[in-house]
Amino acid sequence: MNKQYWSRRIADIEPYIPGEQPKDKKYVKLNTNENPYPPSPRVAEAVAKVAASDLRLYPDPDCAALKKTLAEFYGLRPEQVFVGNGSDEVLAFSFLAFTDEDTPAVFPDITYSFYPVYGEFFGTNCRIVPVREDFTIPLEQLMKNDGTVVLTNPNAPTGIGLSLDEVEQILRANPDHAVIVDEAYIDFGGESAVKLIDRYENLLVIQTFSKSRSLAGMRAGFALGNESLIAALNAVKNSVNSYTLDRMALAAAQAAVEDRAYFYDTCSRIAKTRETTTGKLRELGFFVLPSQANFVFASHERVPARILFRRLREEGVLVRYFDKPRIDDFLRITIGTDAEMEILTATLKRILEEQR
Amino acid sequence: MNKQYWSRRIADIEPYIPGEQPKDKKYVKLNTNENPYPPSPRVAEAVAKVAASDLRLYPDPDCAALKKTLAEFYGLRPEQVFVGNGSDEVLAFSFLAFTDEDTPAVFPDITYSFYPVYGEFFGTNCRIVPVREDFTIPLEQLMKNDGTVVLTNPNAPTGIGLSLDEVEQILRANPDHAVIVDEAYIDFGGESAVKLIDRYENLLVIQTFSKSRSLAGMRAGFALGNESLIAALNAVKNSVNSYTLDRMALAAAQAAVEDRAYFYDTCSRIAKTRETTTGKLRELGFFVLPSQANFVFASHERVPARILFRRLREEGVLVRYFDKPRIDDFLRITIGTDAEMEILTATLKRILEEQR
Repeated sequence: MNKQYWSRRIADIEPYIPGEQPKDKKYVKLNTNENPYPPSPRVAEAVAKVAASDLRLYPDPDCAALKKTLAEFYGLRPEQVFVGNGSDEVLAFSFLAFTDEDTPAVFPDITYSFYPVYGEFFGTNCRIVPVREDFTIPLEQLMKNDGTVVLTNPNAPTGIGLSLDEVEQILRANPDHAVIVDEAYIDFGGESAVKLIDRYENLLVIQTFSKSRSLAGMRAGFALGNESLIAALNAVKNSVNSYTLDRMALAAAQAAVEDRAYFYDTCSRIAKTRETTTGKLRELGFFVLPSQANFVFASHERVPARILFRRLREEGVLVRYFDKPRIDDFLRITIGTDAEMEILTATLKRILEEQR
Repeated sequence: MNKQYWSRRIADIEPYIPGEQPKDKKYVKLNTNENPYPPSPRVAEAVAKVAASDLRLYPDPDCAALKKTLAEFYGLRPEQVFVGNGSDEVLAFSFLAFTDEDTPAVFPDITYSFYPVYGEFFGTNCRIVPVREDFTIPLEQLMKNDGTVVLTNPNAPTGIGLSLDEVEQILRANPDHAVIVDEAYIDFGGESAVKLIDRYENLLVIQTFSKSRSLAGMRAGFALGNESLIAALNAVKNSVNSYTLDRMALAAAQAAVEDRAYFYDTCSRIAKTRETTTGKLRELGFFVLPSQANFVFASHERVPARILFRRLREEGVLVRYFDKPRIDDFLRITIGTDAEMEILTATLKRILEEQR
């Protein structure tokens, strides 16, 4: 590839690689942590109400209606809410807003693999904190007040959660820097830090519509925090793209938040399926990390994850495999419906037998 | 505002300010260059076909179907197409991909006001080339091969176009740098540089769905150029946000491109209305720059633009006013329907009479 015209920023970048979205055949798709349940029926109604003729007009650049709905749901003021095109965009904007050459990003080695990409791409120094042997986070390493701490809670791809007390210790120990808590998977069993926002000026909570609200296909994410942090994110957004959510995404996201009963019901169903699946995987000889998310991270006592990944794919079941140090013998398996998880465990059982 | 946690990047930034989208009352809205005609009827059909249940799944991160449709329309290969969340995002990504501390961006002083924001925000040096007294671009100033030239063609907010020959001169004179031609308004009467792509490796053409394809509310834009430039944009995108277009935006954009007859018809109607409106404004004592876009840039011989802007707003007609050196006696007026333009000219006539 001729890179004559490329900026230095991208000359050697290794971009993030999203989980595959194959089109070749129908898979049991457990590889990108999508929700197995469709969005609330109110989403379809809300989208259908967006008049096609209005699509000629720009959406509201302030996303005021969606911010108001989110603020009500979380007991905050609209000025404490930022919305963006998926939590990936909100995270990218947060790196731009709260890190620079002098303010490093501080995060674990095993975590969402987009963080080091943001760091390298935006010219931020990163301090990487290795997780312990059991994949828990060594809190004392995050108490140094030397940069912007970025934590996924529950962590990905491990699923291990931090308690509210642990998050609070980190907030207290880092008064001079923003602490970003990426709660993409919080609704499946974790303890959200949202209730700490009014007590910690440095806390930014980031969540997404892609997981617990079944809207991965609509691209919406949000951040909650004190007004100064939200204003910083708005400054970034208005230096990049004033309108990041389209009219239908705004309508869909708002309807998804409004249907509380559906949200609580689907989240609790997924948590229940996760517990059943964890039990079955353990019976099959898997070591399964304790997960608070809509996925489990599992390693087999005998058969390498690499082989299981490939054989599952051949059998029509997609899971995620990371060919990276420390985690290259694990599979990350999204929690689907009970029926999908039965296909998964039955298929694994067959594969494990053939690998004797 | 407490900026304790803000990165240096945003501490003093002056973000771009989009045209207002007021909700207080119904206006004749001629301030953000939206298309007065709704999108093609095929857009509503295509969006309605996106199953609500599929919204739980991520969209195609490669946007393959939309790229293929655009490639067919413009006689290119899909590898020569990039799509993003509106042309603002594509422009931001282009600044990240093709400028850095050593490669400045080179653009006119009177042009799209987002360029200097990108430059400042991403730490790019900018070389600003003043336009001539008549608002035309001094081509010789863009022949220095000293940075990435960024040109809006036709220019905004003036509406003045460059010929294909002029664009080609710039491409030839800047072999060591990308030349970005922002053709947001090209379909209303300009000469597109798309046909030069196979001859100039350094040419990147950027267009949008927000103007000629009536989809400002759906957030889609695209870039056309040689594979190496497109690969650079993909590297940027995959370092920021893998999925920038949602499922409905992808479907809407594709349908809009496919309906060629509707596209040509609405563009030519707007061009015709622009000519009629230009004539009427001149009769009212306006100096109107020759426009190839879906707006006109006009200054009155007697009454200051600032006053006309305010009075029009009070009378329910929104236009755009830029309080900036050299252009602070001009109004940028979007071309609406014939009926809307009659309201504009009748209202202006009344205001001009009262200002005697």
